[in-house]
Amino acid sequence: MGKLSVVGIGPGGYEDMTIRADRVLTACEVVVGYHVYVDLVRDRYPDKEFLTTPMTRETERCQMALDAARAGKEVAMVCSGDSGIYGMAGLLYELRGEETEPEISVIPGLTAACSGGAILGAPLTHDFAVISLSDRLTAWETIEKRLEAAAAADLSIVLYNPASRGRPDYLRKACGILLRHLPADRPCGVARNIGRTGESGELLTLERLRDYPADMFCTVFIGNAQTRIAAGRLVTPRGYRHG
Amino acid sequence: MGKLSVVGIGPGGYEDMTIRADRVLTACEVVVGYHVYVDLVRDRYPDKEFLTTPMTRETERCQMALDAARAGKEVAMVCSGDSGIYGMAGLLYELRGEETEPEISVIPGLTAACSGGAILGAPLTHDFAVISLSDRLTAWETIEKRLEAAAAADLSIVLYNPASRGRPDYLRKACGILLRHLPADRPCGVARNIGRTGESGELLTLERLRDYPADMFCTVFIGNAQTRIAAGRLVTPRGYRHG
Repeated sequence: MGKLSVVGIGPGGYEDMTIRADRVLTACEVVVGYHVYVDLVRDRYPDKEFLTTPMTRETERCQMALDAARAGKEVAMVCSGDSGIYGMAGLLYELRGEETEPEISVIPGLTAACSGGAILGAPLTHDFAVISLSDRLTAWETIEKRLEAAAAADLSIVLYNPASRGRPDYLRKACGILLRHLPADRPCGVARNIGRTGESGELLTLERLRDYPADMFCTVFIGNAQTRIAAGRLVTPRGYRHG
Repeated sequence: MGKLSVVGIGPGGYEDMTIRADRVLTACEVVVGYHVYVDLVRDRYPDKEFLTTPMTRETERCQMALDAARAGKEVAMVCSGDSGIYGMAGLLYELRGEETEPEISVIPGLTAACSGGAILGAPLTHDFAVISLSDRLTAWETIEKRLEAAAAADLSIVLYNPASRGRPDYLRKACGILLRHLPADRPCGVARNIGRTGESGELLTLERLRDYPADMFCTVFIGNAQTRIAAGRLVTPRGYRHG
């Protein structure tokens, strides 16, 4: 029986991987993942067996990884960002069920809340919520309820999957909900192409965010009541200066 | 004018740092930080100038780092976990104000939501809230409101700073609030000493969590309505198997 490591590779660049993730990928025999993420690591770790599946074939992908480990291979399944946060670790545990083999190790990685926040400044120095706008696996009513709750409780908010080709208007809908609770001039930011070519950040008000042409390469940050812009950076004070 | 990098070193061990963080610490001249965090990196990066302050002296610590950069040094300020999430990046930007020098780079690191979740299984595969129970800089009423909102919206919850010597009963208070909304048997977990000697994870119900003797080395995870235990792991399904 082999072993399966679920590796969060972070936003995409080699330098944003952890040393542990690099070591696991160096040592493994098989790399499994969504083809876009496998392509991010393929050149640096040659001489591996690479197994890929297209988007939305998550169950098949995880079964492939479990089967390779059961066949005695040292397997690394790569996830963008963290391996747990919206990653494949949960589905692997679900599919393995009540068995304890193959052994699964979760290797954490930088999630976009960390890597995108760093591009924009320091938007998450205080309590926050992470909410995905994808309704592929979640009812929109649930997403709406979570947006309302986070805004009403003055949590900073990070939006993952703010839009895709099939959901071009979801960020607009989400901002509409947030604007029921938050002022139009609430400082917000968008981190785009984190860790990849074309990495950029943009600061804008919640009102302007509503019309922002987001795509699947964006992570969106909405400040809390204290968040401000300082020298072009989105900054949420924690209160030390007044503490 | 030197340059200041705010470096998230992750939970503590070398392998959990990013390659970028390692390179910045290798290249810098001065390392600034809370003495406990500086001690985590001191042996690996010798021949640096080390500047430390005790706990709760955050403003002094950040001024020290800014001053060293203004004096022409290449400075790395180390933070445990991420440099932005409850880290020092926000305060540095605040103190620098509307100036754009010294240049500040935020180097993200693994926050305890990622590194602690990996120890317990995969508790954060879906939307979640991160809430600190420290009321040193936040009114308890605000914390209470955020706990209520997160529970009512079925967000998984990560509690940072669940207890300290001066606040031994805060986790008990928080669980009492959560139990108004959530069932007593809701699966929860505690990650302790993440990335350090004595690292461990424990799974327990919300009712039992109320009596858990948490300390400042614990990070607490509260599942959402779908969270279950599979082969000793805390797992929140994302819904792929039914999607």
